[in-house]
Amino acid sequence: MCAECPPSFPPPGTKADLEEGDILSPRFGADGLITAVTSDVETGDLLMVAHMNSEALWKTVETGEAHYWSRSRKALWHKGDTSGQIQTVVEMRIDCDQDAVWLKVKVGGDGGSCHTGRKTCFYRAIPTGGAPGSVRLEPRDAERLRPAFG
Amino acid sequence: MCAECPPSFPPPGTKADLEEGDILSPRFGADGLITAVTSDVETGDLLMVAHMNSEALWKTVETGEAHYWSRSRKALWHKGDTSGQIQTVVEMRIDCDQDAVWLKVKVGGDGGSCHTGRKTCFYRAIPTGGAPGSVRLEPRDAERLRPAFG
Repeated sequence: MCAECPPSFPPPGTKADLEEGDILSPRFGADGLITAVTSDVETGDLLMVAHMNSEALWKTVETGEAHYWSRSRKALWHKGDTSGQIQTVVEMRIDCDQDAVWLKVKVGGDGGSCHTGRKTCFYRAIPTGGAPGSVRLEPRDAERLRPAFG
Repeated sequence: MCAECPPSFPPPGTKADLEEGDILSPRFGADGLITAVTSDVETGDLLMVAHMNSEALWKTVETGEAHYWSRSRKALWHKGDTSGQIQTVVEMRIDCDQDAVWLKVKVGGDGGSCHTGRKTCFYRAIPTGGAPGSVRLEPRDAERLRPAFG
């Protein structure tokens, strides 16, 4: 799979082990991935939702910098490698059933995390309470820091 | 699919439509689901990561209360229906490629969101910088508000 194979994680144990234990045994899906949610450690704002395979998770734990699995490029993705938008992990957590991780990060470079050139990927609100067919997205934190990466 | 079929969302358009348009056209995966990330509107803390099918998304938009798709029960899940932990949506956003939503919520009842009886599903930290095999999860915000639901 990789030139320098990372250590594998122990296989998930019982429900009690998963939920109450201190062993990191992530439950990768059929596609080999878990969900990674990344937020700004200072504001709490969500920056992006991405995915990690075993190697990406291990590299993140080992280096303290966010690594993901790019589903489009089918490759390990050290976020910020080319853009400078390195995400330094201040705290990392795992959820009850160990199929999602939460990264609280500081972002390097221009401070952006979205390929559209914005700080966050979540730059549009969905108004609630609307009638069918009337929903129109509304911009929120939609200013661009740089042009889109394409 | 459902007794009172919800309106369907318009199919995803071009990349530009998805990223820069004001039309909500969620990209459900092969399993018919998108990722839903829910945080506490006051603290910014992540509470849970779950999934929504078309109906769950529509009900959430329509009612302003979080609805998910329970993958274990294969059923629409109005969060808090039995526990009282209703999640009232203060703001809802969608990401750049429209395959993930972010809900900022106020939680009713005892204020918990995790089936283990805790406020958040993310009650364990993964220390970074550790050597292979030495990672041990550490409790964070791990106090129980109530016994586990099982």
